[in-house]
Amino acid sequence: MGLLVVGSVALDSVETPFGRTENAVGGSAVFFGVAGALLHPVQMVGVVGRDYPMDELRRLAARGEGLDLRGVTVADGESFRWVGVYGFDLQTRDTLETRLGVFANFRPVIPEPFRDAEYVFLGNIDPELQLDVLTQVHRPKLVACDTMNYWIQGKRTALMKLLEQVDVLLVNDSEVRELSGDWHIHRAARWVMAHGPKHVVVKKGEHGAVLVGADRIFYVPAFPLDDVFDPTGAGDSFAGGFMAHLARTGDLSEANMRRAMVYGSALGAFAVERFSVGRFEEISRADVVARVRAYRDLVDFELDAEPGDGGHR
Amino acid sequence: MGLLVVGSVALDSVETPFGRTENAVGGSAVFFGVAGALLHPVQMVGVVGRDYPMDELRRLAARGEGLDLRGVTVADGESFRWVGVYGFDLQTRDTLETRLGVFANFRPVIPEPFRDAEYVFLGNIDPELQLDVLTQVHRPKLVACDTMNYWIQGKRTALMKLLEQVDVLLVNDSEVRELSGDWHIHRAARWVMAHGPKHVVVKKGEHGAVLVGADRIFYVPAFPLDDVFDPTGAGDSFAGGFMAHLARTGDLSEANMRRAMVYGSALGAFAVERFSVGRFEEISRADVVARVRAYRDLVDFELDAEPGDGGHR
Repeated sequence: MGLLVVGSVALDSVETPFGRTENAVGGSAVFFGVAGALLHPVQMVGVVGRDYPMDELRRLAARGEGLDLRGVTVADGESFRWVGVYGFDLQTRDTLETRLGVFANFRPVIPEPFRDAEYVFLGNIDPELQLDVLTQVHRPKLVACDTMNYWIQGKRTALMKLLEQVDVLLVNDSEVRELSGDWHIHRAARWVMAHGPKHVVVKKGEHGAVLVGADRIFYVPAFPLDDVFDPTGAGDSFAGGFMAHLARTGDLSEANMRRAMVYGSALGAFAVERFSVGRFEEISRADVVARVRAYRDLVDFELDAEPGDGGHR
Repeated sequence: MGLLVVGSVALDSVETPFGRTENAVGGSAVFFGVAGALLHPVQMVGVVGRDYPMDELRRLAARGEGLDLRGVTVADGESFRWVGVYGFDLQTRDTLETRLGVFANFRPVIPEPFRDAEYVFLGNIDPELQLDVLTQVHRPKLVACDTMNYWIQGKRTALMKLLEQVDVLLVNDSEVRELSGDWHIHRAARWVMAHGPKHVVVKKGEHGAVLVGADRIFYVPAFPLDDVFDPTGAGDSFAGGFMAHLARTGDLSEANMRRAMVYGSALGAFAVERFSVGRFEEISRADVVARVRAYRDLVDFELDAEPGDGGHR
């Protein structure tokens, strides 16, 4: 089943306490696509400048189940560039520079063969553009989107209109708090659900992620890594794993949404082990599946038999 | 099997965004004892002044499986008092006043009938006193302890000597970081384990708790509560649930340690729903068991069958 991502395609320069990289491939669509393609083919829509290392992107796109780049437009001008520095604990980051380049005039055009995509992820771009993408796709089975403080503050009306058409909102904890005006994550998620989405996924970085649905909450911790190298792209890689698992299985049951959360967490955890998308070049779907299984050991416990209640596992 | 707690017995005055309480029963031994006694009888050792509301403590002690107060000494002078204020998000708290009173000269004497306790919890007191308690008990099957930044900084030598004799260290994330000098929780826990304890329990407040053992990590999230009223005592209530489950079952297997983590989390979550130990007066063991079961739904997921590997649950 077709899986479409629309988002940024960028060149990231990142400094962490463990090293630095310059002009490495990045952006929400790239992390989503390269991570997701380990599980399921991904169709990508975005824009780059003539300076973008398309050979490298094509090389990455050939891996796994494949990343279809027919929706990536090469425009006159510079590619979107982001320069950031992380603090010692990798929790805080400062953006030193954002140069939008050709991304400033990005107007997503979904190629005809992508318009039947049943799974659509709207990466973090202007909600008016996210809305426009939804007019171009035919009948998606599931639409998920991300957003950020910039749009919550500046394009709230469009964002609220978008939410009415979205099935799953995937955001981080500060974003869901800001959007809802409620600091309490679960109440904030329910506020969002009253405005459209049936599920809210709240990503909490090193504290894991939560899936909030109509009457159940599912919690998945962050995978215990000894070394986190570069947190950039973890959230988009999470989204890639989450959506690719759903697209691969075509199953939107609660049980499978939970599995998708674990696939998302696994891919988010791989993302941070190297700069850029480097870790995804070293692994295959088998590694992802192994990590998903390791998650079970991380959270699994058996209920004890209680005297008088007949015994339970 | 005997379960002994040695710790503070205090009068807490707490202000949260939701209200305030004055001179309410509190202290590590009280939260541990009242929470733990919902599952298993608890023997308490501590000291109070003549001003302490012993009638109220006796009333609380009669609940559940019972709290044996024969180790609570009433001394001339004032009881230990703590005055604190929590910020809006309940994450930060300021101590306005600490009056040690009779607690300043506390020298725990373990009553003869308590010395055979097989499960011993050393609440957060001077590590020299914690060490002294261990000379008074006969042959405990499991010794767990808590500590705090004050002792980590001021009594490091005694604390390290204590750790050699402790099976489980239960601390919060900032404490394990400060003790080990490593900001990374899992590495910090392993550092502690290299100095004695076979397990480390790291309590992370609203982000749950982690059990780190020789080669496995178990993660339990915080229970999703709509309203947190007063975080005071959550960690000690966690310890009470954890230890009382182990004492009740007498089973130190990895599977049962994991269950104990969930019992601890359940009792920690009840603690924060009212001021002082108020919530424990409203519930019975059946409520604790129901919450433990609800935890399963919060984290449970089934692995999908992977083609070619024969299928897995």
